[in-house]
Amino acid sequence: MNLLLLETDDFVSVDEVVLQGRRLQHLNEVHRATQGDTLRVGQVNGRMGKGQVIEINDRHARLSVSLDQLPPPKLPLALILALPRPKMLRRILQNVAAMGVPRLILLNSYRVEKSFWQTPFLEPDATREQLLLGLEQGRDTVLPEIIIEQRFKPFAEDRLPELTCETLGLVGHPGPYAACPRAVTGPVTLAIGPEGGWIPYEIEKLQEAGLQPVQLGERILRVENAVTALLARLF
Amino acid sequence: MNLLLLETDDFVSVDEVVLQGRRLQHLNEVHRATQGDTLRVGQVNGRMGKGQVIEINDRHARLSVSLDQLPPPKLPLALILALPRPKMLRRILQNVAAMGVPRLILLNSYRVEKSFWQTPFLEPDATREQLLLGLEQGRDTVLPEIIIEQRFKPFAEDRLPELTCETLGLVGHPGPYAACPRAVTGPVTLAIGPEGGWIPYEIEKLQEAGLQPVQLGERILRVENAVTALLARLF
Repeated sequence: MNLLLLETDDFVSVDEVVLQGRRLQHLNEVHRATQGDTLRVGQVNGRMGKGQVIEINDRHARLSVSLDQLPPPKLPLALILALPRPKMLRRILQNVAAMGVPRLILLNSYRVEKSFWQTPFLEPDATREQLLLGLEQGRDTVLPEIIIEQRFKPFAEDRLPELTCETLGLVGHPGPYAACPRAVTGPVTLAIGPEGGWIPYEIEKLQEAGLQPVQLGERILRVENAVTALLARLF
Repeated sequence: MNLLLLETDDFVSVDEVVLQGRRLQHLNEVHRATQGDTLRVGQVNGRMGKGQVIEINDRHARLSVSLDQLPPPKLPLALILALPRPKMLRRILQNVAAMGVPRLILLNSYRVEKSFWQTPFLEPDATREQLLLGLEQGRDTVLPEIIIEQRFKPFAEDRLPELTCETLGLVGHPGPYAACPRAVTGPVTLAIGPEGGWIPYEIEKLQEAGLQPVQLGERILRVENAVTALLARLF
């Protein structure tokens, strides 16, 4: 991890934390932290700064922390993703948090297998865990908002037009469309389909709601790869 | 898979193939192909076209094929990657093949764990298998060239300067460097470090060989994500 994330419960006083579990293990085994070492730390949904190891052993670590920096700005983006298969979902949640996406909407689509909605990886605790890993990777503290939309039509008809309003609305889709724009400056609403792509009805509905189809060339990328490629190109 | 890749051994006549194993299973279980169905096919390192199912059952599939299209152009790129951990290596090989990288050099670095070089995933058969999965995903037939460079210094001093010559030489590295350029047109040599980054000595050597450090912003991406992001931005 490139940033040690602190939860409210870790604080034993205003500037001191005690850590156990996964983060303690990481400090011991990967950082091989010893007394006096200084680390980058951040408070979940709060500021970032430095932490100094006061005491560390195999039961707990005690750090003195000073949080005086703002986390990096988020991308001006709402990302809509057809729910990916559970294993890929976990990596995408990490990537999305690491890259600075502030809001992720997981949407149903004709080509999303019904069983994907049953995965325990969609539980709030499970998504939070993956998002935290991504924030630790990307050095950010602010958890993205995750919105679950299990019905395509009411989302596309009733809520999407408002979301898209005054943003550049795009839907990534292979086909004879314009190339995805580069280095945009304003806010973007971007939708990315499932493996196999959106069906024509869905593309039509997304277009009606203000998203224009754009493509990334003739090569078809896996969804997690397409997410990264589109964000890197847009921002 | 978005393209059914055919090996020389699959051909029973000039325009007919018989398939078994993984691809047969995929045809049966994912495509649910039946007699008369037409699929995109390509010959490994050859042309692409259409295949029509003549016969399919749970023992084999017989297709009549017509190969009349060239595969998509590759990126004008030599990609140098500090050897990633085995699990990530597999995904990176797939991504690299899907995105059209023609040449991948896997290089040692101070922060590459020695054990990574022992992985069976580096064996030619194993890398070929992952590259084929990537080509099937990205709809390409031409296997990227994989070069193994297990010693950093002789590679950086003796072979890299020639490789970099008359290309835009870049090394992705977090720090106070220029932002990675966008939408370049000429050939590029791009080096991407291990988790934890190149050490200063390595950056110095890469610079001497003609690679200039560029960064992608203050967020630190996992290597596989950085590869995709840098390629999407550059091309």
